[in-house]
Amino acid sequence: MLYDFRSFVNPGRYAFGKGSFNHLGELINKQKNENNDWVVYMIDTFFKDKDEVINRIPTNEKDLFIWIDPKDEPKTILVNEYRDKILAHQNTLPAVVVGMGGGTAMDYSKATALMVTNPGDSKDYQGLDLIKNEGIYNICIPTIAGTGAEVSMTAVLSGPEKKLGIKCDYTIPNEVIFDPELLATVLDSDRFYTGMDCFIHNVESLNGTWINAMGKAFAEKSNELCEEVFTNKISNRLKADEQMMVASIMGGNSITYAQVGVCHALSYGLAVVLGTHHGVGNCIVFNQLQDYYPDGYKMFKKMQALQGVEIPSGITANCTDEQLDQMVEVSWALEHMWNNVFGPDWKNHINKPTIKDLFKRM
Amino acid sequence: MLYDFRSFVNPGRYAFGKGSFNHLGELINKQKNENNDWVVYMIDTFFKDKDEVINRIPTNEKDLFIWIDPKDEPKTILVNEYRDKILAHQNTLPAVVVGMGGGTAMDYSKATALMVTNPGDSKDYQGLDLIKNEGIYNICIPTIAGTGAEVSMTAVLSGPEKKLGIKCDYTIPNEVIFDPELLATVLDSDRFYTGMDCFIHNVESLNGTWINAMGKAFAEKSNELCEEVFTNKISNRLKADEQMMVASIMGGNSITYAQVGVCHALSYGLAVVLGTHHGVGNCIVFNQLQDYYPDGYKMFKKMQALQGVEIPSGITANCTDEQLDQMVEVSWALEHMWNNVFGPDWKNHINKPTIKDLFKRM
Repeated sequence: MLYDFRSFVNPGRYAFGKGSFNHLGELINKQKNENNDWVVYMIDTFFKDKDEVINRIPTNEKDLFIWIDPKDEPKTILVNEYRDKILAHQNTLPAVVVGMGGGTAMDYSKATALMVTNPGDSKDYQGLDLIKNEGIYNICIPTIAGTGAEVSMTAVLSGPEKKLGIKCDYTIPNEVIFDPELLATVLDSDRFYTGMDCFIHNVESLNGTWINAMGKAFAEKSNELCEEVFTNKISNRLKADEQMMVASIMGGNSITYAQVGVCHALSYGLAVVLGTHHGVGNCIVFNQLQDYYPDGYKMFKKMQALQGVEIPSGITANCTDEQLDQMVEVSWALEHMWNNVFGPDWKNHINKPTIKDLFKRM
Repeated sequence: MLYDFRSFVNPGRYAFGKGSFNHLGELINKQKNENNDWVVYMIDTFFKDKDEVINRIPTNEKDLFIWIDPKDEPKTILVNEYRDKILAHQNTLPAVVVGMGGGTAMDYSKATALMVTNPGDSKDYQGLDLIKNEGIYNICIPTIAGTGAEVSMTAVLSGPEKKLGIKCDYTIPNEVIFDPELLATVLDSDRFYTGMDCFIHNVESLNGTWINAMGKAFAEKSNELCEEVFTNKISNRLKADEQMMVASIMGGNSITYAQVGVCHALSYGLAVVLGTHHGVGNCIVFNQLQDYYPDGYKMFKKMQALQGVEIPSGITANCTDEQLDQMVEVSWALEHMWNNVFGPDWKNHINKPTIKDLFKRM
């Protein structure tokens, strides 16, 4: 286990339901005081030309907008840059850092909110409980469902040396707005890949050795909700999106009390070496994991067929042997994931050539 | 709806799993400082002679023990008395108020922790958002599963005029220790009645008009877990108790995003007039609600038969007509519950003679 004992912190508050986004201004105002009266908005570039959404953000001339490009996974170097921008923006600290978008925008907001109050380079905080000070009040607004970033105590970051989250009590969002209307314009492929991020981490959690009653109940229900949505059992899109937001909460909760497995370990390898985005990366990897998660694999393929979304293939075809080895090393180093899959003697159950072979097939 | 919009606060932290109770001392020490270095323990009298549990509590000579008799529902007058005791105990405020037991002990601890920092009579705070100041850090330790008190923003209280909770953001526990070993000695009847509190509020939530995707998912999974336990699908008692703790969390979460119904409205009537305890009271009422919740009723009777627990009957047989009318009035006044059951035009769907007739049958 990652901890002998831990009292897990919960996200502070949830505003849930259609129209809840309209209340962002109220929620921000509760955090403002005379010394902290401005806001940082870290928003997915997807919304740059979506005036109908952007115009609803309660901005003020003092506020700072930072557009987050979701193409790349969150990077420590950019977290540092955003932090410097924030510190230079006004003479005071901001009252709130809002992260609006998918896992990338939310994780940037979670990490940056912490780096404003913790000195140094964000790469030095990659790991467990390294952060010393509470961050700026962080409000996350997911606009795609499945990452679980909105309820997790990890801000996943790629640094110069490793892809590893900043993980501590303070990383968890102070408040989350779940408004299903914000999910209306998501691309079908992104919707599927991100939904599968949730489905896959539930499968990994349920099949892991670290599972307990809490992780199990949350993962089971989360996957029931995912499967209803992606086998088209829910005809109303808004209702389906709302349900996927609940699935995402429950999937995130499950991981808090359990751990991910083979798919996440390998998808980190793809991310570090090829920059493959987490959602699609998980799908690319899971597409090769029929031997490890047979039931989950079968359901995954069924949902994929029904959604008509393609999983990219051949992405490692042009990789050098050195690149493949690097992917293997990145994956191999994620001991806690392998330990969850196979138990403490995991090295007796998996080896590097097997992992390399899996990468070659992707 | 009770609110047009609300951003719901979550319990602060969860320590979950067998053995987590051993860490109570660590969790308390994190809250202590030089000005606040003592603790109030509000503990169910059930544990008074259970040395094997009591000796594990990390007490200090400065601490204050208050034994909570669970026979009676929590009362405002006793909350005031406990508050006065706490204020007189040391020259400083306590660092932590621990509530250990069932809904009664936990709700006393939640309410008392608030009354230490809010002036006046606790009856004046019965209602929504009347509390002005944050309370003393509150750690709840459920020793029976199903009430949901450990995750709810309500401390249910009976005052001189009404049974109505103190309900606000500050009422929610700061931390909860879920240790299934503490449930080992619960009486079979209490275990069933309290489990059914959870089952029944899920049925009410799922059949109500206020239900949303969040309330639905939590109630559905919670009842799946309850039904497995009380139809004897889980042979290992510790595993069953652990699962019921998760059911209780999820049931409590469901009610946050939805509302209870007919059974709770009527059981409040029994509580105020006859002092009937909440768990058994719900069972007595639900036993007459086949017309309102036919599916839930069927499952309830199945679980009751399998557990071999008796539901008291004839408890209103000797009631005066005046008493019955008073029960009706108490129930009738719980407009939000009726509104959840039937919608805003609930008075077209239920009337006082029908409710009185239900009470007579109990």
